[in-house]
Amino acid sequence: MNSLEEVNDFVRNGHQQYLPHISIDSVIFGYHNQQLKILLLHWKGYNGWSLPGGFIRRNEPLSQAAHRVVQERTGLNDLFLQQFHIFGDSPYRLHERSVRDFTEKYGIPIDADEGNWLFERTLSVGYFALVDYSEVNIRTDFFTNDYQWWDVGTIPPLLFDQDEVVEKALTTLRLQLYHQPIGISLLPEKFTLPEIHALYETILGKKLDQRNFAKKLVSLGLIKKLDEQRAIGPHRSPFLYQFDRDAYADALKLGIVHTY
Amino acid sequence: MNSLEEVNDFVRNGHQQYLPHISIDSVIFGYHNQQLKILLLHWKGYNGWSLPGGFIRRNEPLSQAAHRVVQERTGLNDLFLQQFHIFGDSPYRLHERSVRDFTEKYGIPIDADEGNWLFERTLSVGYFALVDYSEVNIRTDFFTNDYQWWDVGTIPPLLFDQDEVVEKALTTLRLQLYHQPIGISLLPEKFTLPEIHALYETILGKKLDQRNFAKKLVSLGLIKKLDEQRAIGPHRSPFLYQFDRDAYADALKLGIVHTY
Repeated sequence: MNSLEEVNDFVRNGHQQYLPHISIDSVIFGYHNQQLKILLLHWKGYNGWSLPGGFIRRNEPLSQAAHRVVQERTGLNDLFLQQFHIFGDSPYRLHERSVRDFTEKYGIPIDADEGNWLFERTLSVGYFALVDYSEVNIRTDFFTNDYQWWDVGTIPPLLFDQDEVVEKALTTLRLQLYHQPIGISLLPEKFTLPEIHALYETILGKKLDQRNFAKKLVSLGLIKKLDEQRAIGPHRSPFLYQFDRDAYADALKLGIVHTY
Repeated sequence: MNSLEEVNDFVRNGHQQYLPHISIDSVIFGYHNQQLKILLLHWKGYNGWSLPGGFIRRNEPLSQAAHRVVQERTGLNDLFLQQFHIFGDSPYRLHERSVRDFTEKYGIPIDADEGNWLFERTLSVGYFALVDYSEVNIRTDFFTNDYQWWDVGTIPPLLFDQDEVVEKALTTLRLQLYHQPIGISLLPEKFTLPEIHALYETILGKKLDQRNFAKKLVSLGLIKKLDEQRAIGPHRSPFLYQFDRDAYADALKLGIVHTY
């Protein structure tokens, strides 16, 4: 949505195309050079930062909607997108939103005597993705005039209830690191232990003992050691590893991911 | 809802009280005597089994709605209720539902020319709880004429998309056993290792090495060994353990649940 005309139509007639009462918020984590960042958009009218989001088309599968919303913002397809929570408890998620406020901020007159779908109570489904942020091209639109990749340690206070959304996403990402091949898109097909070690340290935000770390990932069945080495110097040729997606999928089905 | 009058009012005017497009499904796991079961209700009109569910009041926090829905069915308060997924992908969750079908099954005539909130596309938020099923009193209503605690291994095919809901709940429960004090309501405040070992084996549906199991739970910071023993025989006085809720909460906040 870029023109005032498109936005007007979205506000007035969007309920014919989209479900009311449910939206999608996406937390896009970006990893590059041992840094973990989050994509934020700057909302013009509200003069603040927020997560990329959108709505679900009336006959669109939920997960497809999440992919579309992220794709529209980032141009990225085939993302690992993970649903992590639906938010419906905070004061912002309990009541209708102010039409007057919106009208003042964006100069779009709305006749809300009979209610307007966009301002009714809206729960939000959170999805997160993990991408290499050096490969992403962000699009702004009518509502947003800037974007920025913020370091997870220095995120500004977000609009709406989105501080809670980011915190929950980060907690989930960190927990799932040990259950799911989350880093799969951020590492080469075959990687060395120092490479995955650096990725995990960055996402978890703490130091990990390298020897125990590797042993644990192997014993959990998440990665497997290959009978292959990479030559990186005259006397340095570390073994290569690979995510074991099949073993993981099987294990998850049988409820035996943990090999305690 | 028990009388035809109440049901009629719910179908016709429920949208004034409840949000359309979102419902709640609850998977209530029951544990007792080393058996893991799931509560199912038998729907009269559809002649099949389904999960207890309900809708969200217009100004009601989502998690409060989940508690109310379960409380209305089971009489249980203060449950550990865990949101685990929102379902919006299956064919059943993509389209409106048949008013004609409902009318035939329940003999409630509905004028659906202008649409009816109850039959519009509805996504469903899944919550699970873990209870001692010997303490639960189930209520049936107008739509349901029976309930049963089914062993997780022998659940009948469920109505709608609920096979998927149960599978996802079970997977989540099993994964979270090692992250969250899920069993806290099913064990005495202070318990022995054999007690928690039996609980975990039952929920995971597999044998666990008793020595490694205990070591792991302690090293994860989930339980702590007390300086107390329970006398259960002349030469048997096993040490007692306790869930470490504070340590767990702190760890989760800092993203250091896993002590690899």
